[in-house]
Amino acid sequence: MEVKVSLFGFGNVGRAVARVLLEKKKFIRERHGLEFKVVSVTDRSGTLWMPEGIDLREALMIKESFGKLSARTNEYETYDMGPKEAIRDVEADIAVDITNDRSAHEWHLAALREGKAVVTSNKPPLAFHYSKLIGKARKRNLPYLFEATVMAGTPIITLLREGLLGDSIERIEAVLNATTTFILGEMEGGGSLEEALERAQKLGIAERDPRGDILGIDAGYKATILHCITFGPKTFDEARVKGIAGITSRGIQRARKRGRTIRLVATVERGSIIVEPQEVPLDGPLAVKSHENAAIIETDLLGGLIIRGAGAGLKETASGVVSDIVKASFVIQGR
Amino acid sequence: MEVKVSLFGFGNVGRAVARVLLEKKKFIRERHGLEFKVVSVTDRSGTLWMPEGIDLREALMIKESFGKLSARTNEYETYDMGPKEAIRDVEADIAVDITNDRSAHEWHLAALREGKAVVTSNKPPLAFHYSKLIGKARKRNLPYLFEATVMAGTPIITLLREGLLGDSIERIEAVLNATTTFILGEMEGGGSLEEALERAQKLGIAERDPRGDILGIDAGYKATILHCITFGPKTFDEARVKGIAGITSRGIQRARKRGRTIRLVATVERGSIIVEPQEVPLDGPLAVKSHENAAIIETDLLGGLIIRGAGAGLKETASGVVSDIVKASFVIQGR
Repeated sequence: MEVKVSLFGFGNVGRAVARVLLEKKKFIRERHGLEFKVVSVTDRSGTLWMPEGIDLREALMIKESFGKLSARTNEYETYDMGPKEAIRDVEADIAVDITNDRSAHEWHLAALREGKAVVTSNKPPLAFHYSKLIGKARKRNLPYLFEATVMAGTPIITLLREGLLGDSIERIEAVLNATTTFILGEMEGGGSLEEALERAQKLGIAERDPRGDILGIDAGYKATILHCITFGPKTFDEARVKGIAGITSRGIQRARKRGRTIRLVATVERGSIIVEPQEVPLDGPLAVKSHENAAIIETDLLGGLIIRGAGAGLKETASGVVSDIVKASFVIQGR
Repeated sequence: MEVKVSLFGFGNVGRAVARVLLEKKKFIRERHGLEFKVVSVTDRSGTLWMPEGIDLREALMIKESFGKLSARTNEYETYDMGPKEAIRDVEADIAVDITNDRSAHEWHLAALREGKAVVTSNKPPLAFHYSKLIGKARKRNLPYLFEATVMAGTPIITLLREGLLGDSIERIEAVLNATTTFILGEMEGGGSLEEALERAQKLGIAERDPRGDILGIDAGYKATILHCITFGPKTFDEARVKGIAGITSRGIQRARKRGRTIRLVATVERGSIIVEPQEVPLDGPLAVKSHENAAIIETDLLGGLIIRGAGAGLKETASGVVSDIVKASFVIQGR
């Protein structure tokens, strides 16, 4: 089956998604019987739109050569269209949001109204408007999928939404932000937070504006999403979030003497979302390293369940996005 | 929605499933909007059949008082029907196999032919007849679900079938048998395999005939099922299986001096299923304890992903069975 896809966002993650769609075309056809036709790609400069399908190789080349899509070449023309216009005008089955547009919920809702499935790796829409978005998707009977918003492609969302259906989940404890893990890991060696942050920025692990990570906002968004799918709707404003700004390498070293270290831990229970630095046992599941995330899910029947895997990275995030595009296609196909 | 369920098998796991259905009736109604009506329960003595729905509390009492269902009371009558007859005669939406009937694939196929969904925790049907069963289920467009066959309720099957859809899985390494883990754990203390086995039997962890566990057959069934869903059909006869009979406590202690221990490890790659005792790092994910299982899933995009949780136990296994009953109901409902 052919599925028409509109991509929104052509930054690092967006291009990683394009690369996976390109490189795994054969795998996706053979394994899932699906043929993805990307009919539009929107970045900040405009929208590349070709109803007959975009050659992603060319789109990647344009973006990587010129830094934006609107650079005109012989064959490709970009339109002066933002997400809202593209959602309205481009005929597509699935709208894929790989931006970090904080008001993207508006065009997610528009996409659902237009009968388009939505796949997103963009967290704020869910962390602030879960109820509205999921409500609209249910009403329209359309997939609204967001595996890549939490733990990148590590399928914790699939696990919580499609597994454990007989269990009552009592509590989730998780390390959900890889940048703070990297920084705290560096500080274990003795350096200051500022030095560790600088190193993280040099390596491209932390963003130029690192506040979202350091202050726990990114982890808070993710914890809010976990609360929404597990215990029901809540918004980020209701989360209690404390970042790692107050942590010192001396504090970490004291913890290590007791066989522990410090990680930014999210604790999600019914009605409660808490993100704060916590001491965790060095040999326990939450003492993750580098770009790994981990979650302990406690339930009435199973007891404790642990899922651990990549929580950041380009192809690791693309993994979640592409998995959702495949899943959304199955639902569309099943109609 | 009301869903009619036939239970097959009323041993320890079967009764645990009945108990969960009973105790979580309200949860299942409120969370999933489902009302399960158990219309028949079949054990070795016959079939308790009530089209208007069986009071599971009473059925549990009868079984626990008399050791079998065929004990007649005022209200309940059991029929002299085995699974095949019950599949044919009892009107139900879902047939749930919680037996260890090695030829159950025959009545699984019959159930699918009758238009019934199948949920099973019984491994041999899948380990020997995966292709036929899944083929029939696809043809009839019916759910055939088996979460509880591998790692009890820990949702590795959901994760592999419904997540990671864009990833190519390269390899699974897993500890899938809890009895051998218990025995090897006991032997770490210095005792012999025989002593450890005896203790396991006393605690009800090992069966009276422990060969299935000790020889690696149980782990081999599970590894075969993982191969089937990940890389395509294969049967247990194609698996290379070596149990723990040759392991000595001296061998384990030698391994521990190198920071390692011994576990019965299944390695599943495309076209290859190997189960054998292996040295694993003491601080690694496969050095599980007690009734835990763990799997490392390696993929092209995500790298390594770890899932760890209960791999045995009554309510832990019931967790997987009940999750599948809910999931099968959703599919039926969606029609």
